[in-house]
Amino acid sequence: MMVETKVDGRVQRGERSRRVILDRAMDIASVEGLESLSVRRLASELELSKSGVFAQFGSKEELQLATVRAAVEVFVAEVVKPARRAPVGIRRVWALADSWLTYAAAPIFSGGCFFLSAVSEFDARPGRVHDAVAAARRDWLRLYETAVAEAIELGEIDADADPANLAFELDAIARVAGQDALLFDDPSYYDRARRLVRARLKTMATATSPVIP
Amino acid sequence: MMVETKVDGRVQRGERSRRVILDRAMDIASVEGLESLSVRRLASELELSKSGVFAQFGSKEELQLATVRAAVEVFVAEVVKPARRAPVGIRRVWALADSWLTYAAAPIFSGGCFFLSAVSEFDARPGRVHDAVAAARRDWLRLYETAVAEAIELGEIDADADPANLAFELDAIARVAGQDALLFDDPSYYDRARRLVRARLKTMATATSPVIP
Repeated sequence: MMVETKVDGRVQRGERSRRVILDRAMDIASVEGLESLSVRRLASELELSKSGVFAQFGSKEELQLATVRAAVEVFVAEVVKPARRAPVGIRRVWALADSWLTYAAAPIFSGGCFFLSAVSEFDARPGRVHDAVAAARRDWLRLYETAVAEAIELGEIDADADPANLAFELDAIARVAGQDALLFDDPSYYDRARRLVRARLKTMATATSPVIP
Repeated sequence: MMVETKVDGRVQRGERSRRVILDRAMDIASVEGLESLSVRRLASELELSKSGVFAQFGSKEELQLATVRAAVEVFVAEVVKPARRAPVGIRRVWALADSWLTYAAAPIFSGGCFFLSAVSEFDARPGRVHDAVAAARRDWLRLYETAVAEAIELGEIDADADPANLAFELDAIARVAGQDALLFDDPSYYDRARRLVRARLKTMATATSPVIP
């Protein structure tokens, strides 16, 4: 029993410190990029032993990959799950845009959406980190596209609409607005994006489509 | 005479080496970011003396600012000037999108559009480099907005359209497509963006609007 408790305690402490390290890593990466992460820097900023951080993550690349995985989890919790509470159809498409904008505007990471930064940083650099970032973006676009396709099936969005193209356009409006809000230090960009997405969805809505909240 | 020729020669050599340094700096920044620039690295990669490069640019921040200015010049030459050859009106709006996509797709910089990378890198980092990048983006959005406003005045785009919003949307489609083309290593994104911009412009065109080439 004693031994088990001790081991459990150690495992828990290990998980806690892993969490603390990854939270800090995501925040640094959102501002300065994944390349600025290092075992040494995280250990020093969090006052942990370098060997302890190294034992958790090993190489810099492993640390970067673990940070991307942690950011996917945050994204799912903050964007995907809240949007899934909206009913399938045009309201869920709207909810995806709306909850993405809420997440980008919220002070979750100091540098705005983690993936906006990570995509720009790794789009032209091949390797495992690039592949993880590209997979995350692909998953998000597919989720969005599926939501549009479902809305078309339900007769809430025009049957002429191309699900992948409409999802891409709506996401592009939100993404660039999120980036401009940061660049110009002007949060009005988030609501501007909401107005544009709403207007675009209205032009694609059918006569029987439910009202977007 | 001798002296003048010598001085001219030195100035010319200075300008040539400045050009060579800035070309390399823009290319590195497009892939790895402006933060990865340093006098030491450029001198070593270009086999120039460190003191020579330092004499040209001084601090790292000056080097970054000179690189942003050089990238603005490239952008004007590659995007703005070609688009200005199109007649004022909806065809110029189209030309801005079209020439941006040509520039982003062309192997001008290894990492695609210099400003896509620079905006992401500096959006959350205050300072002079941030301000230079933000000013460049603001100028581009204003130019685009003016082109849309002119097309409205000429009766070629719906009078209901908001010039800033339409310019923002068209630019967002191209920007995100440019980034996805790199991320997914799939150049079909450029033509997809052309189709989407064209379709969006068609929905905003008036009955008397000239045909987009």
